[in-house]
Amino acid sequence: MTQQPIVSHPHTVIALLTDFGAGDSDVGVMKGVVATIAPDVQLIDITHDIGPQNVASGAWILDSGYRYFPRNTVFVCVVDPGVGSARRAIALHAGEWFFVGPDNGLFSYVLAAQPLHGAALLSNPTYQLPQVSSTFHGRDIFAPAGAHLANGVPLDQLGPLLDPASLQHLDAALPRQHGSSIDAVIIHADHFGNLITSIPLSMIPGLLTDTGVQVTFPQHGITIEKRHRFFAEATDNEQPFIFPDSSGYVGIAVRNGSAARTLGVHASAPITLVTATK
Amino acid sequence: MTQQPIVSHPHTVIALLTDFGAGDSDVGVMKGVVATIAPDVQLIDITHDIGPQNVASGAWILDSGYRYFPRNTVFVCVVDPGVGSARRAIALHAGEWFFVGPDNGLFSYVLAAQPLHGAALLSNPTYQLPQVSSTFHGRDIFAPAGAHLANGVPLDQLGPLLDPASLQHLDAALPRQHGSSIDAVIIHADHFGNLITSIPLSMIPGLLTDTGVQVTFPQHGITIEKRHRFFAEATDNEQPFIFPDSSGYVGIAVRNGSAARTLGVHASAPITLVTATK
Amino acid sequence: MTQQPIVSHPHTVIALLTDFGAGDSDVGVMKGVVATIAPDVQLIDITHDIGPQNVASGAWILDSGYRYFPRNTVFVCVVDPGVGSARRAIALHAGEWFFVGPDNGLFSYVLAAQPLHGAALLSNPTYQLPQVSSTFHGRDIFAPAGAHLANGVPLDQLGPLLDPASLQHLDAALPRQHGSSIDAVIIHADHFGNLITSIPLSMIPGLLTDTGVQVTFPQHGITIEKRHRFFAEATDNEQPFIFPDSSGYVGIAVRNGSAARTLGVHASAPITLVTATK
Repeated sequence: MTQQPIVSHPHTVIALLTDFGAGDSDVGVMKGVVATIAPDVQLIDITHDIGPQNVASGAWILDSGYRYFPRNTVFVCVVDPGVGSARRAIALHAGEWFFVGPDNGLFSYVLAAQPLHGAALLSNPTYQLPQVSSTFHGRDIFAPAGAHLANGVPLDQLGPLLDPASLQHLDAALPRQHGSSIDAVIIHADHFGNLITSIPLSMIPGLLTDTGVQVTFPQHGITIEKRHRFFAEATDNEQPFIFPDSSGYVGIAVRNGSAARTLGVHASAPITLVTATK
Repeated sequence: MTQQPIVSHPHTVIALLTDFGAGDSDVGVMKGVVATIAPDVQLIDITHDIGPQNVASGAWILDSGYRYFPRNTVFVCVVDPGVGSARRAIALHAGEWFFVGPDNGLFSYVLAAQPLHGAALLSNPTYQLPQVSSTFHGRDIFAPAGAHLANGVPLDQLGPLLDPASLQHLDAALPRQHGSSIDAVIIHADHFGNLITSIPLSMIPGLLTDTGVQVTFPQHGITIEKRHRFFAEATDNEQPFIFPDSSGYVGIAVRNGSAARTLGVHASAPITLVTATK
Repeated sequence: MTQQPIVSHPHTVIALLTDFGAGDSDVGVMKGVVATIAPDVQLIDITHDIGPQNVASGAWILDSGYRYFPRNTVFVCVVDPGVGSARRAIALHAGEWFFVGPDNGLFSYVLAAQPLHGAALLSNPTYQLPQVSSTFHGRDIFAPAGAHLANGVPLDQLGPLLDPASLQHLDAALPRQHGSSIDAVIIHADHFGNLITSIPLSMIPGLLTDTGVQVTFPQHGITIEKRHRFFAEATDNEQPFIFPDSSGYVGIAVRNGSAARTLGVHASAPITLVTATK
């Protein structure tokens, strides 16, 4: 692990992901804090509609998006049920990006996929607001840290570097392979009602071409065998089908409809994907 | 139709309109792609809450807004039930603006009102992401095309120019005049519950001053005759009234209330506007 | 009251607060108008989900956020049931910031807390759109005024200066102290269901340390005595507790839950806070 130098440049992006919703002033306030410290930064919202305090959902949504942002983007992520307690506030330099937020597993997917160049505890009051509340570290600690990183402040100035082994990971809903079947869960129901499984497409290269591929919802007594490359390839009002979602995971969809509603399935439902009949 | 030169300038705006909602990473990812290709662009959201796959609604919302954006704004619009199928991905230079999205009628109002300077098929892989999925062309084709247009790439570099006559138009809910009456539909119910008709104010210059003007909802057995210039001109809890909506279309409102809820009327309901009693 | 000179600088922020929701083109159109007049401005959303025409809620949400924005930020705020009527359109220079919107009490908290350097009537057509509608002053008057202020146009060019005593104030839900008890209301239920009272923390410095502090909901027959500094300090599924909200007001919360739902209480419910038992 080497601490790489950070070069400030005028077009740094700060991307925000929270569970704060759109109805309060919280997200705007975080942006006001960033604009005060780092006026040249471009602010981009990923989403603020993570289910309240649903760290696992926040981690997966972040995973579905961060690779498409420019090098040096600082992701400020706040899904933080432990705010004010002993949980640590951290910043990471991983892959080509920076990540700021609580050390509660929110960065599990990033840490699993990207080389970690450094991790710091956000304890230096120089890079926090003068008064730090017990309930809004997004405003008082995370937004300032992200803005200072974007300004070129090195990671190790924000606080002491941390042992990577000490970082929290989610008791992840990682898929488990047993012979020709994979046990997994529905990790996300998207805006269109598509059900996204926790099975990365890389685990099943023959998703569309192998014979015998099927997805079973054991709690619902449902098995799906149809497969399509995209929505319009299906015929209307057809039964749900398996497809390769653009997030990089196996999905279940209904053309011009909601698979979640059609099947009565929600996020966290267990599934089994059979890769070949025996 | 002449292909006009495009001059890049540091303050180009890219405006986004989709049916992706706010809960997934999709919109943020499109912005990350734009920021990677065109870091100086200013990103502005029109809305991401178009009804899922409701092309007609997306077309009308775009119409209600695009004229207020700066010259050279690139509108990246994605309401795209046919993603992955043979429907074409296109870019238009129309009036003072550029438009990028699927060729499915989303730009019907623009094409009806603005001179078309050029239309291109988005087929040049140089201006797409390296890997193009079958389900998320917003990320892989439309956002990159918009960013490259903002950077000054000429329309005809994105792919071959298209015959304007080949562009798709909506089987539009265009109002039809029969003598003194106009058959039309409710094209949009806005955030306040105001019902906006598909009748442009230009069709009835005497909306507020002619005698005998009334709007009938034949399926609901409702006729509205009251007219006001603005909401506060009505008295509270009054019956619904006809007013000139700021979108440029005839609207129906209730002061401090929702006309949609009061009347039990939704978008797409047919109406008849009588311009004068005989 | 002195009219201070305004110096234009390249990073001015315009922050937007409205009740327009996210589903129409209204907010995007206001931003398009700003980008046309003032292309260098950074646009930041506070929220567009103020309850329709709920001026009191908009005033409080603005109060919870504006202090965190950079000096010279222009707040364009539109919760405007009286649009088109005789209510005045105004701009204020108060504290380190500018505020633009209807004169209906939306700036009551700002006026109570900040020194007023000047107030102007937005009557100069030079700084409005060429056509002013009767129903969308956000687009036609307020966004242009904000953009011109950000460009360095002096307040008194927008229209005649106003007598501060003539500005509208809300019949505010200001807390009233009677001996050791304070009568107040729930001013906001936030995204997590936390109930925020209208009692500023400055009124009760011993909130967490004094003996006998309790909050009563007289209409609900509920009294709350538990107090915590932050959410994770409580145990799960515990009874609601009193806490110092990051907005600067006394709040009521449930850990990992919604106090609003648990208590069946909504915004505007009256409360009494007893600061000490007698």
